[in-house]
Amino acid sequence: MARPYIPSLDLIEPAARGEIWAVARLISRAEAGQPEVREAIGEIYKRAGAAHVIGITGVPGSGKSTLVSKLVRKLLDAGERVAVVAIDPSSPYSGGSILGDRIRMSDLVLDPNVFIRSMATRGAVGGMAHAALDVVDILDLAGFDKIIIETVGVGQDEVEIAKSSHTTVVVSAPGLGDEIQAIKAGILEIADLHVVSKCDRSDANRTLTDLKMMLKDGLGGALTRGWVPPVIGTSSYDDEGFDELVDGFARHLAHLEGPAGQARREQISVFRLKKAAEALMLEMLRSDPSFEPEGKRVAARQTDPYTAASGIVKHFSTEKTHV
Amino acid sequence: MARPYIPSLDLIEPAARGEIWAVARLISRAEAGQPEVREAIGEIYKRAGAAHVIGITGVPGSGKSTLVSKLVRKLLDAGERVAVVAIDPSSPYSGGSILGDRIRMSDLVLDPNVFIRSMATRGAVGGMAHAALDVVDILDLAGFDKIIIETVGVGQDEVEIAKSSHTTVVVSAPGLGDEIQAIKAGILEIADLHVVSKCDRSDANRTLTDLKMMLKDGLGGALTRGWVPPVIGTSSYDDEGFDELVDGFARHLAHLEGPAGQARREQISVFRLKKAAEALMLEMLRSDPSFEPEGKRVAARQTDPYTAASGIVKHFSTEKTHV
Repeated sequence: MARPYIPSLDLIEPAARGEIWAVARLISRAEAGQPEVREAIGEIYKRAGAAHVIGITGVPGSGKSTLVSKLVRKLLDAGERVAVVAIDPSSPYSGGSILGDRIRMSDLVLDPNVFIRSMATRGAVGGMAHAALDVVDILDLAGFDKIIIETVGVGQDEVEIAKSSHTTVVVSAPGLGDEIQAIKAGILEIADLHVVSKCDRSDANRTLTDLKMMLKDGLGGALTRGWVPPVIGTSSYDDEGFDELVDGFARHLAHLEGPAGQARREQISVFRLKKAAEALMLEMLRSDPSFEPEGKRVAARQTDPYTAASGIVKHFSTEKTHV
Repeated sequence: MARPYIPSLDLIEPAARGEIWAVARLISRAEAGQPEVREAIGEIYKRAGAAHVIGITGVPGSGKSTLVSKLVRKLLDAGERVAVVAIDPSSPYSGGSILGDRIRMSDLVLDPNVFIRSMATRGAVGGMAHAALDVVDILDLAGFDKIIIETVGVGQDEVEIAKSSHTTVVVSAPGLGDEIQAIKAGILEIADLHVVSKCDRSDANRTLTDLKMMLKDGLGGALTRGWVPPVIGTSSYDDEGFDELVDGFARHLAHLEGPAGQARREQISVFRLKKAAEALMLEMLRSDPSFEPEGKRVAARQTDPYTAASGIVKHFSTEKTHV
């Protein structure tokens, strides 16, 4: 039997009452970037803003997903409603999510106070960033107290999403390879809170000490005002460090009550606005039919990419004058 | 003493003669995205096209850099002039390259037939992709026979760069974690050649078998026409598999003499053209002064990102009519 189509605007009230079917539909439409949902997103945006949004990122192998599972359990035990938006690495072609159903979190899915959504990274420039933040607003409207955005800390989009939260957590772990360590160094500076996971391992102390040294040397504090990012050791295996982490969230949230919070919200808004404007511009640009024929001329080296691109952009702006 | 500024157009002839000082200056300017260099890049583009461009990508820890070092040595021994453009993961803030001087390749830098350049990933949307491909053209003009673009196979930009070569190599390795394996699965399909590195390890056979099974199941061959991507095991430690790899390059290059090569070149050209057009559009968009004030209104939830973005894009196109 065909399910009747409910306009996105009509889904807002049930979603605001926390009805999950409406939340899920809005999210699917936001994720697909359907133009019809934009007006609703605009309304939702204006009504959202109550949740504490926490970005959790870390290099592959840092144990983020296990940490997030444990953390969700702790937050639930503390009486909070928790949503997780997990941005999964995916194929540039199939667009499919690879980690799929996030089976590691399956013990949580039956709890009505938790909502877990996996989003695949997509082709659209900035598309993932604003879709992910739209999803956060929908979950915010639905009354979740804590919204966790989990991303792999590689790739600019992923890092920017993690940064577009109120509190950004960077997860490090002992025993990773050189190349991974190099990527890690690049994301340390966005952290409001540092976590060293897998602290049951014997080499974890070394990682903790190294990280504290790097922070002393000025790395990792560039963006914070009046806030010293703490370093928290956790062990999902021994169930240690999570109270300290939850306490860190509360302290950072209190810090954001001040002028730092205002600055942070403005920073996030400017970022979202830019991503949305870029997406609109590129949407218009991409529909230009000249790319294929001009691309062939470029391939034949009859012209170069810059000259051809200038032509297309110019042609595009001229066209706009007739709209 | 101040070095006299030589216009980029005047650097073309010395660069075409293979004079490295001119090549290096052109590359620095292309990398910085200086507008002055664009006309020169256009000229260079039209004169380039002789080199065989090889993209090498793989997940962190797959042993790409060690493989590339060995490979460069093999190609040099075969009498080829080789250039390497290594795209390094870097901080979204500092813009600095983390792997820095690529010390692992330092034994090669004194050979006049090899040129190694490390490029940091940057903030500009698509900026890295077209800067990297501009650098490839400059090296092509300078007479390098093989140009290797090495990227970490995470993040869409990095994967797209690797794909924008004549021959794309995806490096796998035994003994990586689950999350890394998931990322790997996402890039397998862009491979013209598969390499399993670290084949001196006892668990390498398992990796080889698994990969061959996945390919049999249809993964990894979607983009190729009349070409079955071979799986080549290498060991940098035992110096094995490199002759087979070099032979794989030659066979794929021969394959590209046919209609597949034409299609590939057109695909790359359309991609470059799109990236160049996007960069031009975004350059214009970003100079719009409305982002800060509108961002503040978004932060105060007086408006939403989509409505504000539409306003800016509209305002932008209207402005263009007066140019």
